[in-house]
Amino acid sequence: MPSNISMGMEALSLMFTSQPIGFVSSPYKNTSDVPKGLGAKHEADGVLKILSDFEPGLADIEGFSHLIVLWEFDRANGFELSGMPPSDNRPHGVFATRSPRRPNPIGLTIVELRCREGTELHVRGVDMLDGTPILDIKPYLSSIPPEKLRRGWLADAESRQT
Amino acid sequence: MPSNISMGMEALSLMFTSQPIGFVSSPYKNTSDVPKGLGAKHEADGVLKILSDFEPGLADIEGFSHLIVLWEFDRANGFELSGMPPSDNRPHGVFATRSPRRPNPIGLTIVELRCREGTELHVRGVDMLDGTPILDIKPYLSSIPPEKLRRGWLADAESRQT
Repeated sequence: MPSNISMGMEALSLMFTSQPIGFVSSPYKNTSDVPKGLGAKHEADGVLKILSDFEPGLADIEGFSHLIVLWEFDRANGFELSGMPPSDNRPHGVFATRSPRRPNPIGLTIVELRCREGTELHVRGVDMLDGTPILDIKPYLSSIPPEKLRRGWLADAESRQT
Repeated sequence: MPSNISMGMEALSLMFTSQPIGFVSSPYKNTSDVPKGLGAKHEADGVLKILSDFEPGLADIEGFSHLIVLWEFDRANGFELSGMPPSDNRPHGVFATRSPRRPNPIGLTIVELRCREGTELHVRGVDMLDGTPILDIKPYLSSIPPEKLRRGWLADAESRQT
């Protein structure tokens, strides 16, 4: 491994690019429309509209009940390493939150796949804005058992509210 | 939503960039070292070495038992929309697999956070190559219950093997 200084130098020279494979059709037109904070439910129906060039990449996706969608927070401006999430009144490091204002503004949503119609994936559980660029879709293969999960400050914030 | 043709035109003009927030220290030096295929276990210990500029973003991350790591398949060459995964002898669409040869070569790994030492996150469950650039870290907050999960061709491939 390179040292911390050479790691920093190396990182400065590395730049990766990505382009949309499709766009989200969502009921949420503005950030304020998206349910946020403790107990927020993401049950909205939406459509992942994949560009026709990429249709062969969807083969056999119908067999999976849940998909991991990676997408670009294309309407986020800059980043903040520490911030106050909607679910707490205390600041937390950005990598301990789902804040859109991240160094690399890549979002992740787990959706339930309801059906596929050609290049359109009809899904439940979108929390993206309408028109959000999709970067990747992966099958959701397995879960961490709930009894093995610790949820840090989020569990604390929940217990302070009850 | 734009039509499919204007969607394609819009996508061509959209390009997003990302830069490493750190690098993975992993026992795997070559692709052939990484366990693959059905029943492959990812229990290797590794370190997520975050660049010191981003250290404030790690505040409170220690409270989470599991993290979602997004990273760049920086040694993948090009992409293939349909391919044969190591876990099956039939081809599947790239978005129904974890293939590194994706249109946007972004990898995702769920790791268990064992401890943090400053900018170093000691984790279990790495499947990345040594030196892999890290793009983002998010807390793993909840799981899909196993009884709600369908695993498509992977479940079929497993049942054909037994």
